[in-house]
Amino acid sequence: MIFLDNASTTKIKNEIISEIEKSCQLFFNPSAVYSKSLETKKHVLNAKEQICNALGVTYNDNLIITGSATEANNLAIIGSARKKDAQYIFSQGEHPSVYNCALELKNRGYNVVFAKLKQNGEVDVDDLSKLLENDTCFVSIMHVSNETGAINDIYRIVKLVKSKQKDAIIHCDGVQAFGKFGINVANLGVDMYTISAHKFGGPKGIGALYVKDIKKLKPIIFGGGQEFGLRSGTENVQYILAFGKLCENLNIQENYKKVDEMRKYIIDFFSNKNDVTINSTLNGSPYITSISFEGVRGETLVHMLEEDEIYVGTGSACSSKKGALNRTLEAMGKTKVQNEGAIRISLSSENSLDEIKFACEKIYEKFLILKEKLR
Amino acid sequence: MIFLDNASTTKIKNEIISEIEKSCQLFFNPSAVYSKSLETKKHVLNAKEQICNALGVTYNDNLIITGSATEANNLAIIGSARKKDAQYIFSQGEHPSVYNCALELKNRGYNVVFAKLKQNGEVDVDDLSKLLENDTCFVSIMHVSNETGAINDIYRIVKLVKSKQKDAIIHCDGVQAFGKFGINVANLGVDMYTISAHKFGGPKGIGALYVKDIKKLKPIIFGGGQEFGLRSGTENVQYILAFGKLCENLNIQENYKKVDEMRKYIIDFFSNKNDVTINSTLNGSPYITSISFEGVRGETLVHMLEEDEIYVGTGSACSSKKGALNRTLEAMGKTKVQNEGAIRISLSSENSLDEIKFACEKIYEKFLILKEKLR
Repeated sequence: MIFLDNASTTKIKNEIISEIEKSCQLFFNPSAVYSKSLETKKHVLNAKEQICNALGVTYNDNLIITGSATEANNLAIIGSARKKDAQYIFSQGEHPSVYNCALELKNRGYNVVFAKLKQNGEVDVDDLSKLLENDTCFVSIMHVSNETGAINDIYRIVKLVKSKQKDAIIHCDGVQAFGKFGINVANLGVDMYTISAHKFGGPKGIGALYVKDIKKLKPIIFGGGQEFGLRSGTENVQYILAFGKLCENLNIQENYKKVDEMRKYIIDFFSNKNDVTINSTLNGSPYITSISFEGVRGETLVHMLEEDEIYVGTGSACSSKKGALNRTLEAMGKTKVQNEGAIRISLSSENSLDEIKFACEKIYEKFLILKEKLR
Repeated sequence: MIFLDNASTTKIKNEIISEIEKSCQLFFNPSAVYSKSLETKKHVLNAKEQICNALGVTYNDNLIITGSATEANNLAIIGSARKKDAQYIFSQGEHPSVYNCALELKNRGYNVVFAKLKQNGEVDVDDLSKLLENDTCFVSIMHVSNETGAINDIYRIVKLVKSKQKDAIIHCDGVQAFGKFGINVANLGVDMYTISAHKFGGPKGIGALYVKDIKKLKPIIFGGGQEFGLRSGTENVQYILAFGKLCENLNIQENYKKVDEMRKYIIDFFSNKNDVTINSTLNGSPYITSISFEGVRGETLVHMLEEDEIYVGTGSACSSKKGALNRTLEAMGKTKVQNEGAIRISLSSENSLDEIKFACEKIYEKFLILKEKLR
């Protein structure tokens, strides 16, 4: 099997499976009062420290563990919403877990606006700049696009927003960046940063939100007051420890080099083919490449590739409604034909160049067969 | 180690750890379009069927998987809130994940009222009956008290509420009942029922909400539209499969008999002791017994018992704020001294009568030592 839908989810690393299994012996409720619980709590704190290290900061009660990155994005956005007449800015290319929160705020009567994307998939910072008002109170821009891999210059965006409105809260969905790039949330200057474990070898069902100042946030889930009252519910000790372990040895440079080589091969291979458009910018993350095969349906191509046990995506699994056009590609100005014929090849450091060579051949072969059929 | 805080959380069963480990190979995103994802989705559906079987119903898109029972309670309550002037009824003995949602609704301006508890810890149905208004639109009453094990007659409560207001939505927090009692949510007549996995041998970090009519519910987490749009976020495949497996062989009768025998021993042992009050009713769940040791602090007793590797609780880990009195015991009319001296002994079928005999001796011994010291 050649698995090239790693932006959707990844194979769980063997050492992480072992960590989960091992930690099951530590089954105590970290919120109980006896020593075994305090010991469990210490392990949880240690894992949070490991995660914060990977975020470039020291753990200081500034990481909220959630049941998914989706929940972390919801907590960041809905938990920050206060004044309805102040302005909330998002981009047109955000993941559904951010975009649909924005729409929910709009439905509730908040003043929500969306910054445009450039043709290369990055957020149009000039447009964002024009949108900024004196009452802008919240901005959420993703770090790396889950659809195209386009990287947004968060540092520059933070500078821009804070220069106009220093009290605005800036949130960044870092799900496709964390674990793949060297991140320093302090240097980026963001107030909140969302991460996930299952995009780089961890389990599904855990995410986290880095929060510079937890006093500015309100909970969206109420109960026993865990996570500083910001996310009630008994802690998922096993996955928290697994998430910590996952952050221990990220091998970011080495993995990047390997994945970049594979990406270069993909780009070279498809660059001069007729009716093939590469939607991703070369300045983007090498982990994600979106390619349009004009005249065919991306989904049909995906199914044909399954015959050879090659798995690619049509785009975000979180937004794969049948028949719907890809919002990000639309915002980039792609034609309907390009949008319908798009597939997303997303890599992991577990992939090999040989796999990529074989997959590229097969993808192109299937495309030609399909095109011939449809002629 | 003698672990008697099973209402807080339980040891994960070995077969469940194996199931988690095994299922890690099935790492695909159930929302992607290719066959491996569809296969994963089938396993998820199968697990939901297993869980619904244990709820006495057929799976019919009526079970929402969440990241905890706390989240399921939040979804049920906040996801049902509509008209602010209509009436929302809760009991004074609800778990913090229900009670604090009720307070949140109250804060938001909803008309929220609380039904009293009887001295035995059950909800006072006469008081509930008096509270009912023509505009009562939502009632949430727990099945089994997490503090005392008191069982509420949900069937009768549903009849009562529906006779007065047939369209009222009735939610029941079944966390301390599910897996321990034969449940049939259809016979109970409830509209929603919350369950958890980690209270009877499953992992922490997964809960579920049975919903008779999902059209009546609104999401509290927005995103990719998983779980019929009611709980977005990539599915925690491993824990869902584990939860399903956990529901396969519940051995309810056999476990009940075993636990009931242990409970009887506890009650007999402490029944005629001076300055000892058993707060739990004999009609309640044998899994939970609350006992007050007058003149000492429950927490001190808990710590002394640790020396002998006996672990009991002071009450819900979710509401163990230092110095705060136990809300449930207060609502039952217990004195301050009884409240401060309360411990909760909660059993699992993994406990043995020998453990209980040893623990009872030790608890009483430590109590006498403490009392002597404090004289």
